[in-house]
Amino acid sequence: MEIVFSPIGYVKTEAVGDQVKDDAVISQIVLMPELVEGLEGLAQFSHIFVLFHLNQVAKDSTMPLKIHPKRRTDLPLTGIFATRTMMRPNPIGLTIVEILKVEGNVLTVRGLDAFDGTPVLDIKPYDPWEAPQNAHAPVWWRKLYET
Amino acid sequence: MEIVFSPIGYVKTEAVGDQVKDDAVISQIVLMPELVEGLEGLAQFSHIFVLFHLNQVAKDSTMPLKIHPKRRTDLPLTGIFATRTMMRPNPIGLTIVEILKVEGNVLTVRGLDAFDGTPVLDIKPYDPWEAPQNAHAPVWWRKLYET
Repeated sequence: MEIVFSPIGYVKTEAVGDQVKDDAVISQIVLMPELVEGLEGLAQFSHIFVLFHLNQVAKDSTMPLKIHPKRRTDLPLTGIFATRTMMRPNPIGLTIVEILKVEGNVLTVRGLDAFDGTPVLDIKPYDPWEAPQNAHAPVWWRKLYET
Repeated sequence: MEIVFSPIGYVKTEAVGDQVKDDAVISQIVLMPELVEGLEGLAQFSHIFVLFHLNQVAKDSTMPLKIHPKRRTDLPLTGIFATRTMMRPNPIGLTIVEILKVEGNVLTVRGLDAFDGTPVLDIKPYDPWEAPQNAHAPVWWRKLYET
């Protein structure tokens, strides 16, 4: 069964390589002009979810189902669905970003870890009340922040 | 430009209609058996993001770009990207759910607002440290919780 989507816009950034992983990186989402009305009211939210197509990931039939997160062999061999690896059956990226500005069909955001030209699939408001309380991750996950 | 995905699994639930919107609803995600290794370690997380295909939404070329959230005319006419409406250019649902059990290729979860048979696109671990501090939503958003 095939599910077909089309980009609602594209990422525009001057950041290259690992620069896009910087939490402070500023980039833009340039929405298709015909969708601009769909942004009405978005600036009232501080944050959004951005769903995007990890289009730099080659389709690879030999994709492993377990990996060492960030290729760190000090971290356990882990199922891809328990990691944020780009190598997943449906390469969809999901990031919570801060809205800095909405101007016409251009959103300026902080913290989007997507390369220049990345197709954007959806934008959803971030709901502060939706964040689960007392959520927990495995102990090794914290090590991803200690780089 | 077309972006093509395939389901990694399907939702299984006895809840029908508005029952799926209940935060306490318990449902299952039945993963394709060949992907089961990808779940290794997932049970160490308390919560996951579930991305799914809102396949009950008919493709409609006359989709409005502004709506009253939940059809409530007491709430402002709002751009679709500032709402969680299912009527969006790429009908992708995104919900944070609690993991109750992982058994073979079946995840039992709490709080998944998806109908029986919904195709699942991706599962990602929920990272408690990723939740932005001091996020805010417009005042009217809070009214969605007062039903």
